[in-house]
Amino acid sequence: MSEVDALIFANEAFYRTFAGGDIQGLNDVWAKDTPVSCIHPGWNALDDRDDIMESFAQIIDGPAPPQIECHAPQAMIFGDAGIVICYESIGEEVLVATNLFVRSGSKWLMVHHHAGPAQTLPQEPEETEPVSIN
Amino acid sequence: MSEVDALIFANEAFYRTFAGGDIQGLNDVWAKDTPVSCIHPGWNALDDRDDIMESFAQIIDGPAPPQIECHAPQAMIFGDAGIVICYESIGEEVLVATNLFVRSGSKWLMVHHHAGPAQTLPQEPEETEPVSIN
Repeated sequence: MSEVDALIFANEAFYRTFAGGDIQGLNDVWAKDTPVSCIHPGWNALDDRDDIMESFAQIIDGPAPPQIECHAPQAMIFGDAGIVICYESIGEEVLVATNLFVRSGSKWLMVHHHAGPAQTLPQEPEETEPVSIN
Repeated sequence: MSEVDALIFANEAFYRTFAGGDIQGLNDVWAKDTPVSCIHPGWNALDDRDDIMESFAQIIDGPAPPQIECHAPQAMIFGDAGIVICYESIGEEVLVATNLFVRSGSKWLMVHHHAGPAQTLPQEPEETEPVSIN
């Protein structure tokens, strides 16, 4: 797996565990040995790891646990840090997220999440027609 | 200057040039040799450097050029990448921003900016009374 694929995989793991209400999985996605921070839509920043985990537990256990889906992730790597910009759909609501990860061996661990309002979901790239050579 | 001080300085340069309508200064703040991306409040992500510079020019030249001020910056360094979480006041509006920089020699260059709505400006830390020893 390339390092970009591994970064996209880590980003997908964040959304899979969040959507699945898997607090233990979220705990594994987030870095444990570095500073972390999290900005939920419209919230102020949280910079205490326990507060961040508690915030996800509250959202998951709340009256409207998110049917969250990730769209159109774009990854950029800067040394031992990697960023994924992606869109989130929660029902009709569209958000855009900045997710920052740090390298840990062959894995990437989340150190920052920031989601806020966006205009629209971007168009997914169209599948390329296979070229037929007769 | 410590590397954290240099990171905070780069973040301040971003806000100083933005508030001052200094497009050339903004151009110097942003990295030129790496991928960059920018998410203005409520916008979709821009990932083309020229589009990003043009967006700042449009905002600065627009009907409501921002009286933007930066508050309570918090810096974290992950190898050659550094992140600053800070608050932005634009008149009565309060935003929270994720600003990502990469190391370039002794300087830090911006590679990503994401601003979105926040609840309130955090309380600035109170100035510590100097201790008087008589």
